[in-house]
Amino acid sequence: MSDLLIRNCTVVHVDTPQAARVAVAQDIVIAGNRIHAVLPTGQADPSRFSQVIDARGLVAMPGLINCHAHVPMVLFRGLAEDVSIDRWFNEYIWPLENNLTPEDVHTGALLGAAEMIRAGVTSVADHYFHMDENATAVEQSGIRALLGWAIFTSSGEAMIERSGDFVSDWHGAANGRIRACMAPHANYTCSDDYLRAVAHKARELGVSIHIHAAETMSQTQASLEKTGFTPIQTLEMTGILDSPTIIAHGCGLLPEDIEILSRYEAGVAHAPKTYLKLAMDLTPILAARAAGVPIGLATDGACSNNTLNLWESLRLMAMTQKDRAGSPEVLPIPEALYIATRESARVFGLANELGALTPGYLADIILLDLNGLHHQPLHSISASLVYNVEPPDVHTVIIDGEIVMHDRRIHTIDVPAVISKANGAKQRLAYRNPGQRIQTYNP
Amino acid sequence: MSDLLIRNCTVVHVDTPQAARVAVAQDIVIAGNRIHAVLPTGQADPSRFSQVIDARGLVAMPGLINCHAHVPMVLFRGLAEDVSIDRWFNEYIWPLENNLTPEDVHTGALLGAAEMIRAGVTSVADHYFHMDENATAVEQSGIRALLGWAIFTSSGEAMIERSGDFVSDWHGAANGRIRACMAPHANYTCSDDYLRAVAHKARELGVSIHIHAAETMSQTQASLEKTGFTPIQTLEMTGILDSPTIIAHGCGLLPEDIEILSRYEAGVAHAPKTYLKLAMDLTPILAARAAGVPIGLATDGACSNNTLNLWESLRLMAMTQKDRAGSPEVLPIPEALYIATRESARVFGLANELGALTPGYLADIILLDLNGLHHQPLHSISASLVYNVEPPDVHTVIIDGEIVMHDRRIHTIDVPAVISKANGAKQRLAYRNPGQRIQTYNP
Repeated sequence: MSDLLIRNCTVVHVDTPQAARVAVAQDIVIAGNRIHAVLPTGQADPSRFSQVIDARGLVAMPGLINCHAHVPMVLFRGLAEDVSIDRWFNEYIWPLENNLTPEDVHTGALLGAAEMIRAGVTSVADHYFHMDENATAVEQSGIRALLGWAIFTSSGEAMIERSGDFVSDWHGAANGRIRACMAPHANYTCSDDYLRAVAHKARELGVSIHIHAAETMSQTQASLEKTGFTPIQTLEMTGILDSPTIIAHGCGLLPEDIEILSRYEAGVAHAPKTYLKLAMDLTPILAARAAGVPIGLATDGACSNNTLNLWESLRLMAMTQKDRAGSPEVLPIPEALYIATRESARVFGLANELGALTPGYLADIILLDLNGLHHQPLHSISASLVYNVEPPDVHTVIIDGEIVMHDRRIHTIDVPAVISKANGAKQRLAYRNPGQRIQTYNP
Repeated sequence: MSDLLIRNCTVVHVDTPQAARVAVAQDIVIAGNRIHAVLPTGQADPSRFSQVIDARGLVAMPGLINCHAHVPMVLFRGLAEDVSIDRWFNEYIWPLENNLTPEDVHTGALLGAAEMIRAGVTSVADHYFHMDENATAVEQSGIRALLGWAIFTSSGEAMIERSGDFVSDWHGAANGRIRACMAPHANYTCSDDYLRAVAHKARELGVSIHIHAAETMSQTQASLEKTGFTPIQTLEMTGILDSPTIIAHGCGLLPEDIEILSRYEAGVAHAPKTYLKLAMDLTPILAARAAGVPIGLATDGACSNNTLNLWESLRLMAMTQKDRAGSPEVLPIPEALYIATRESARVFGLANELGALTPGYLADIILLDLNGLHHQPLHSISASLVYNVEPPDVHTVIIDGEIVMHDRRIHTIDVPAVISKANGAKQRLAYRNPGQRIQTYNP
């Protein structure tokens, strides 16, 4: 069992949405994969630790948690710009995804993990294809992940079994760093019967569900017109919500949908850059949180978000909610940081395990260097965390007690080799024939 | 006369709002402070140049132009968060600015210039106080600037003369790198008579005017209720618009205001991060541009924008206009890049001189390293420029033909010394007594 001492850092605690607390000159003691203690510097004896990080001048906080992504889509970034959501799916994304091989997914998962680690993202809920290769990449990269194999009705019944087998194979792997879940794509690409079967499989396996729903208000309207029910009502009726659920996006949530979600263990993953770029409107965060429905920060895939920089999601979340509410007072800094840490941990399914630098919690910790020009003079650390951080400010990343990046060098991934591999496949990956697509968008 | 060869870079040309053109393997020849030629690599003989930059693997584009800032406000960043616009002015900004000494402004101007140079911002329209010290900092930093001394009616008539003397002293200084203008604060802090006198002074000096106006729709409504005229109508009637004018913000522009502006040499500086954070709504960019009113990108001050990262303004401009229009197709990538370069140059007052890598134009050039994880694989350079760039991607900065930053090292400013000076004054700068403020916000 490894042990690790992080010496003499400044710790940011966000115990409540009302206040962030900054403690200077702190030591963080890590035993195995958990935080053992957080103490004033000097109380722990460095000679008793197998590894010591000198963190003077650095700020420690919980690693960021990306509650909804399609990580390997980094392979397609920049290929689908300035088009309507219908064209985005039917002429770009789903034809592009027809090009993917299992090996591509492995490469993309490594590339995306490296980008996230560099940016201080220590956990990700990844919803994609060829998930065995994806899990292998997660195992290697050192990131924490909740992995779900994306399936549609058109994938066939057998894929429910196949994705269930993936769950059985990988749930709890890599010292528990990998968790697995069922991942039906959406209510509009999965029939009610298909959703019922997936819900049954999730209950049978005792795992959670990760699904897109109510992504836009026009999806909600289309669902009401076609079936008489909202997407969220459909999830309730088909038993999806009987397992803990991550709902991706929810920009089309109605008040009655929020009321339903509040009665289940369901959270909403929020990826505001995607919403702005695709003009999807916004998740009604204020109403959802007022009803007790937790929000988790997310990047979505890099074909709409362009990067996996979760700091940008954090900042955009706060800014766009102020804009929409017409008030600069909503979603103040401590609340934004609370959502990014403890509340995202809850949506990710690890409430009271992740998202705080508290004894007993999993040791997913990032050290930030806020000495750059864009933070100086540093009047407010918490303001800088929400509004100023650039990914290269992340100095060191610890996940599950392991040092995955130190002094901006990633230890687990051969980054130049992965970039080179992705570049080698660039032309093949960019080929598009709308006639050859994996799915059709017609919600 | 210095000469400089930039060898073997990829050049991004944005000649029209409809298309960005990428040319690989280019040499840029700089003679004195102007671009002499852009040629395929190999045609220029490196041995004939006094300075040669090897730019293989780097992307060249025009330096970014910040059309509205209060640069020394970096000294206050993080001190005014999550409050209404009234409190932001009356309880935070204007009491804080009561602390400023001329020496502080010098320090803040250097710190802000360093932050901008690091981010590839090569020009700035700065609207602030103690402008002699500010100009001295600009002279040293190597940045290009349009400087205006902010004045209110409460500053007294003498300040019109004083700020006019500043114009006479500095306009054309530093090889023309410094231009000066008149800078009445706003229609709501300057009486009509005061604006008339300032407009007269600007015409007498033959310089432009930089002013806040129609910052929010409630300012426009307040102006209509108090005077019967919109802020823009007031600017027209008082003769402000008879000189080339930068209007800061314009989130409260009515259609009739846009029609007025279209008849003058007036542009609107757009700082979307400020608007989201202070819930000011947005500049009606689509309507303004349709009427021929140019838009210039801006950061505003770091007390609302938190950084001087103009890439974030660029990205937010495109994303928020899509969001507001409810269409992902508006403000596509080439148009965003056109606004960031040629159109911002026009608002800045240097149309056909700045904002393009074209022979005869001023040599304000940045070299970007897009080899980082967050750009890879690089399917689209232009998409990466709008949606992925982080300031540390800026590798080299050339302003007015001089190498101001190379390989991420700033040559003109002792950055650690400036940061240390700003930190030394931190506590004094953060003191607030709302009873001691330089002005009252009551539009």
